[in-house]
Amino acid sequence: MNQRFKTNSVLRISLFLLLASFCLSGQQLLAQETGKSKNTLTEQQLTVVADRIKSLGLAEEKAYEFLLRLTSVGGRLTGSPQAEEAVGQAVKLMKELGLDRVWTEPVTVNRWVRGEKEIGLVKSRKFGQHKINVAALGNSRATPGEGLEAGLVEVHSFPELEKLGEKVIKGQVVFFNQPMDRTLINPFAAYGQAAQFRVKGASAAAKYGAVAVMVRSATLRIDEHPHTGLMTYESGLPEIPAVSVATADAEKISRWLKEDPETRVFLKTSCQQLGPVVSHNVIGELTGAEYPEEIILAGGHLDSWDLSPGAHDDAAGCAVAVEALRLIKACGLKPARTIRAVLFMDEEFGGTGGRAYASSPRRAGEKHLLAIEQDQGGGVPLGLAVGKNPELLQKISPLARVLQQLGLHWVKNGGGGVDISPLVEQGSLAGTIVPDAQRYFDFHHSALDVPAAVHPRELQLQALALALTLYYFSQEGI
Amino acid sequence: MNQRFKTNSVLRISLFLLLASFCLSGQQLLAQETGKSKNTLTEQQLTVVADRIKSLGLAEEKAYEFLLRLTSVGGRLTGSPQAEEAVGQAVKLMKELGLDRVWTEPVTVNRWVRGEKEIGLVKSRKFGQHKINVAALGNSRATPGEGLEAGLVEVHSFPELEKLGEKVIKGQVVFFNQPMDRTLINPFAAYGQAAQFRVKGASAAAKYGAVAVMVRSATLRIDEHPHTGLMTYESGLPEIPAVSVATADAEKISRWLKEDPETRVFLKTSCQQLGPVVSHNVIGELTGAEYPEEIILAGGHLDSWDLSPGAHDDAAGCAVAVEALRLIKACGLKPARTIRAVLFMDEEFGGTGGRAYASSPRRAGEKHLLAIEQDQGGGVPLGLAVGKNPELLQKISPLARVLQQLGLHWVKNGGGGVDISPLVEQGSLAGTIVPDAQRYFDFHHSALDVPAAVHPRELQLQALALALTLYYFSQEGI
Repeated sequence: MNQRFKTNSVLRISLFLLLASFCLSGQQLLAQETGKSKNTLTEQQLTVVADRIKSLGLAEEKAYEFLLRLTSVGGRLTGSPQAEEAVGQAVKLMKELGLDRVWTEPVTVNRWVRGEKEIGLVKSRKFGQHKINVAALGNSRATPGEGLEAGLVEVHSFPELEKLGEKVIKGQVVFFNQPMDRTLINPFAAYGQAAQFRVKGASAAAKYGAVAVMVRSATLRIDEHPHTGLMTYESGLPEIPAVSVATADAEKISRWLKEDPETRVFLKTSCQQLGPVVSHNVIGELTGAEYPEEIILAGGHLDSWDLSPGAHDDAAGCAVAVEALRLIKACGLKPARTIRAVLFMDEEFGGTGGRAYASSPRRAGEKHLLAIEQDQGGGVPLGLAVGKNPELLQKISPLARVLQQLGLHWVKNGGGGVDISPLVEQGSLAGTIVPDAQRYFDFHHSALDVPAAVHPRELQLQALALALTLYYFSQEGI
Repeated sequence: MNQRFKTNSVLRISLFLLLASFCLSGQQLLAQETGKSKNTLTEQQLTVVADRIKSLGLAEEKAYEFLLRLTSVGGRLTGSPQAEEAVGQAVKLMKELGLDRVWTEPVTVNRWVRGEKEIGLVKSRKFGQHKINVAALGNSRATPGEGLEAGLVEVHSFPELEKLGEKVIKGQVVFFNQPMDRTLINPFAAYGQAAQFRVKGASAAAKYGAVAVMVRSATLRIDEHPHTGLMTYESGLPEIPAVSVATADAEKISRWLKEDPETRVFLKTSCQQLGPVVSHNVIGELTGAEYPEEIILAGGHLDSWDLSPGAHDDAAGCAVAVEALRLIKACGLKPARTIRAVLFMDEEFGGTGGRAYASSPRRAGEKHLLAIEQDQGGGVPLGLAVGKNPELLQKISPLARVLQQLGLHWVKNGGGGVDISPLVEQGSLAGTIVPDAQRYFDFHHSALDVPAAVHPRELQLQALALALTLYYFSQEGI
């Protein structure tokens, strides 16, 4: 595209006049509103607020700066020293920003460690021996110290596994090779389907006597990077080792098996459970001037997988939550209700942080009206998903219209996530500023989830939308 | 984000039942419709079509494959041998895909060549001498063979330039250092403001006796890559050399000038005008079964700047247009009106391709109802901008609803571009599948606009939306 002077002058002039008319009066009105409850924000006032958030928020890219600070710690696996260092960094950051209150709350988490880098080899009399890129799945038991070697059985579904049964499976490594369904527009839907093999595959295969499982990585790309993630064992069944394998290797192994069904695999992992340790959620807030006990929450999770610094998953969500609070404060906005950023520990390994927060005695006397979880990566924000009730959408239509100024073109029911689900069970509304996630699973849970994979401006746009949404609900309630 | 099985089962089952009910009957109905005019597509039929386009289109990423074929030629500067090679490649591709008709139409274009890589140096008695990254602006005259050296005057607006006047400017190099306004959500609006210095800066400065201009690159990033683009000379004023300078260098030079106003610059460029040559637009179509003379057009531009293979700008638009036609054909859809892909030559250097197409004697008897131009990069599609009339939006609301299945959440009035503007002047509606463009100016007109900067799936999603939109209008007319 060449020179375009597309700026719609009429629109711009109108906006200028609107701002000129409301900027001063808007500020005065907003000042009058501070600490008052029944008055609702007019759409014009909200427009002034959005413009202030936009000007301040886009001039710098602070969300990315915060993301860099958190990711500088490295991978932040639940229970690890790095995760605890991230707790300290997050507290330091929130204090530097001058939030009204900053504190931590304890969470007892499981500590699992990967141990030495995993070894994977495929062996075929026809093709020889090749190294494959594998990574133990989170929570997996290790292979025997000397590793294990067995034949491979490729399957694409649980019914297929069941049909093959013990006769075929016993003593073998089950190779779950079902790709993510790329024909689904929403990659999270495709992920949900594919991740079931990662989560439940080991016990499903152990039932028929498998000695280990190897699961195709949940990504739409074909590359050399294994994507890890949580797996669980069903009680009463042997706890067999489980690894993910890079998609490029999965494709190769599948080809080999077609031509040489005797192809075998060697796996060596040394992961361990080290038992429970105490970790922390990190919390900071702008205390509400009028209803401090009514909470509008924005959260991300501070822990990550260990294969990368977890930039998208979920330093992005943490950075956006903190930046939203900074922006609200920097814009001179004084929320009527408390706006709280919660950086949850242990989303990845069981969600204990979310449950600890919701069930803490400190919640006594607090009422969470809305909990927004940002955990779908640092992509450009597309819309706001909030609550379950269509009437809510009607009520917040002024917010929906003003979010368009920030590039978000829809507000729908929806939203949520692992960390806030205990709050939602207690009656809070759920919400999410929904980002574009077409690239998300390229990086997710793999060594590729690094800061360079996040675009500073896209991340910042999430923070703008979150700041406006939090402020709106802090003034309007639910 | 950890395991989420968010797939809404109820929705999925409903969709399955819908497809099961309509897939066969839908195909029959569509078959009956083929070649009929007055029947309009029902929303259910359109849903079936969208699902077919989605399944076929997302299983592979053909748009990206086509982009790789076009970019393999290298930079395709208007009038260059590479641009002509791209013409040949495009014809070959369209013929391979079995479009009903494929042909070229001549366009007389200007040929400008960059010559040797430009040299830029800043020289300060305080800071020494440093190399800076500069690139001649398209259409610029060269410096004298031995280069030129002069003092630097930094300006940020045309009024500032005017105020300084001849007394300050005469004999100097004017350094336009106005950054793009990052507080605008739409980067194209910010680009429009910044690009005026690139386009008109040389003549504005020459008026006061400047010997050359150096213009800050139009990008929001700070990096080492100059971004080129077209500049023009006002007649009657000296035609002084014009270069762009990388943003990192612009920042540095500005710092130097503050501490040492005597800082000088040396520039050496060897660009040349080689006069007019004949090039070509490339055109392929699926001929309408009932109204072959009524055209629904999708276009991108085949030429690019020479600093990169122009992946986003605009191999992306060409690839998406071609892939949309392939998908319509592959889905077995037979358009009532002609659907035509036009790969325009010379968008970047004056838009002669668009004018040649619109004014060609071959247009006699043809009526262009809608022309969609894709030239805003290969990002994920956000919405459809089309026409100027709000009533049109009402009429095409079924399309708007079904586009949501493909991830596009809005349809608004708008759309257009350099290449189709002559058609729009003749009465065609304009349209654009509008992509997210937050990253676009990171790459635009610089060495960074390479295939790796385009995400295959994001590009493919554009092709899906374009295919559905073209087919809809081919059946419904305007």
